[in-house]
Amino acid sequence: MLIYYHHKNRPYLITRSLDPDNQESPIHFLRSRIISSEYTYRRNHFAYPLITPENFIFSISGQVSTPLTFHYYDLLKMPSKTIKMVLECAGNKRAMFEPRTFGEQWKDGAVTQGVWKGVPLTALLSMTGIKADAQEVVFEGFDAGKRKDMEETVPFARSLPLQSAFHPDILVAYEYNNQPLSYKHGFPFRLIVPRWYAMASVKWLKKITVINRPFYGPFQTIDYVYYSKDNSEKKRPVTYMNVNSIIQQPLDYSVQDERYHLIYGIAWSGKGRISKGEISFDQGKKWDPVILDRSQEGPYSWTPWHYLWKEARKGEYIILLRASDSTGRVQPEKPDWNKKGYGYNAISKVHIKIE
Amino acid sequence: MLIYYHHKNRPYLITRSLDPDNQESPIHFLRSRIISSEYTYRRNHFAYPLITPENFIFSISGQVSTPLTFHYYDLLKMPSKTIKMVLECAGNKRAMFEPRTFGEQWKDGAVTQGVWKGVPLTALLSMTGIKADAQEVVFEGFDAGKRKDMEETVPFARSLPLQSAFHPDILVAYEYNNQPLSYKHGFPFRLIVPRWYAMASVKWLKKITVINRPFYGPFQTIDYVYYSKDNSEKKRPVTYMNVNSIIQQPLDYSVQDERYHLIYGIAWSGKGRISKGEISFDQGKKWDPVILDRSQEGPYSWTPWHYLWKEARKGEYIILLRASDSTGRVQPEKPDWNKKGYGYNAISKVHIKIE
Repeated sequence: MLIYYHHKNRPYLITRSLDPDNQESPIHFLRSRIISSEYTYRRNHFAYPLITPENFIFSISGQVSTPLTFHYYDLLKMPSKTIKMVLECAGNKRAMFEPRTFGEQWKDGAVTQGVWKGVPLTALLSMTGIKADAQEVVFEGFDAGKRKDMEETVPFARSLPLQSAFHPDILVAYEYNNQPLSYKHGFPFRLIVPRWYAMASVKWLKKITVINRPFYGPFQTIDYVYYSKDNSEKKRPVTYMNVNSIIQQPLDYSVQDERYHLIYGIAWSGKGRISKGEISFDQGKKWDPVILDRSQEGPYSWTPWHYLWKEARKGEYIILLRASDSTGRVQPEKPDWNKKGYGYNAISKVHIKIE
Repeated sequence: MLIYYHHKNRPYLITRSLDPDNQESPIHFLRSRIISSEYTYRRNHFAYPLITPENFIFSISGQVSTPLTFHYYDLLKMPSKTIKMVLECAGNKRAMFEPRTFGEQWKDGAVTQGVWKGVPLTALLSMTGIKADAQEVVFEGFDAGKRKDMEETVPFARSLPLQSAFHPDILVAYEYNNQPLSYKHGFPFRLIVPRWYAMASVKWLKKITVINRPFYGPFQTIDYVYYSKDNSEKKRPVTYMNVNSIIQQPLDYSVQDERYHLIYGIAWSGKGRISKGEISFDQGKKWDPVILDRSQEGPYSWTPWHYLWKEARKGEYIILLRASDSTGRVQPEKPDWNKKGYGYNAISKVHIKIE
């Protein structure tokens, strides 16, 4: 006779679309500091690329002295760097904008943290050399397809200004959490750009091209730009992550009992470090500091926070959480609305009822 | 060398809570008429019960002539019935109420369809006989625990009025989709009550008690009642499913191209059959009929519908879908708000942008 025992329930990715595959992390149910590949959100613009032998080679060419190609096994032999960092989709929290904006309706789980190992891009670029008139470095992935607004097939490609590209912690990564990159997260190579929204961290890296003019690919000039609110064509590029946070527990519109009192979550920023987290139960009249857990903090990691709520009595509450970073940025009351729905970082909020 | 090939992306359940386990079906990404156990939503009030030898026996007692116990293998030997039906949580679409209501924040995936096999309850009750003063039949599950609003441990238990309990298609089911019930959906026995919201379909059935008074368990009198809007204590029980529908594709706030034009979904009702589905692109001024697919329709099944949209031009659209049933019920413009958030069935709506 079958006997079943008590077991731990498990969460799953939250499917936003299947073609292409866009799935959100069940971040409210994860408390580890390192998110496995399985629970890392997936953001794709196209179908997954076929992986063939040619994917194991990438080239650096263009405005360089010595164009080079690198094989997977070349990379593995070079000096490597390992970086723990937050990766957040520029469209994370898009579904929270009011008025609503079109696109993948991410709630707050298009964010993850993990450990990337790879070769610093600077090391590779110094092998090829850079010509004097170089302006930008373009990264192209093997993922390609049709956009709804263009006729031709385009690859996913992004550039970095030369100055940004020389940041010593940008990696051509081949490991995530001590394992080869998983297929869905860029195997065999993925560019990893700390502090930037994740569109910069190009998956399935195919080639790197140094150019002497600005790059105008659609994922640089149509998408991943903040359009100005006045409906003009003014726009500025999406780059560094805003200061942001999540209240992981309690869940929004959940019913809690009077014993409930541990509130927790994470906060992160693309500039500096998290300097402060504050909580409010009265619409922001009074703010109490939360406890920041810096025990495993690195320069690009998120900061777990918690708050022991001792006065939880029957009633309905709105809990607000406001994070600040060391460069003086603070989560705003209202998000900076933009028609493509990028960079949402208004103060985090959950409604709860205590019975 | 590893070579990966193109593969089909797959959706997952959407986690609403883990303790207890509440997970929603990724219904927008499923087009089959039969939803597997894996993709069937899970709605629990308590931790999963331990399954031990005593779970394989249930009793019928109370106001009966001959109290009886039935073993799993007894049931398997009795004449059985097989029924395809919709099962919908009373809280399905709760997250769509405005003002918002507290509780599990189900979107529109707390609904499923499958094939249940079991012994008609009437057959079992006629074996025990019913005393003349019997009023209700109480069904208790093995799942039990503490509620936030009560001190004592309570089981999940529900009653049916005697008249309803004698419906010939109510089953004590032991198979789902030609497999033994899965553990998470009630193994070994589950009461299956067609047309009623799913709180009536008690999982992990432990005992059936015929009583000569009304049953006042908390899942009958505190939960699963429609409280009146005027904040009085007036309330009426949640019973039959409302007429309802889902637009499965396109997704809300998605961007589509001009070629897109197949709109599809499902409609169902707890009374009669779906008689009509209508679609509107102009806020309900003009309604066009959609095509109902009755090819595999049974008395308790949902009705797939689709609409070929030929005039899809660039722009933003709100698509409305309104289902009617053969008893004259029609999805209303506004849902019937109630503080526990049950029975949401307003006209289905998605916003899309065509680029």
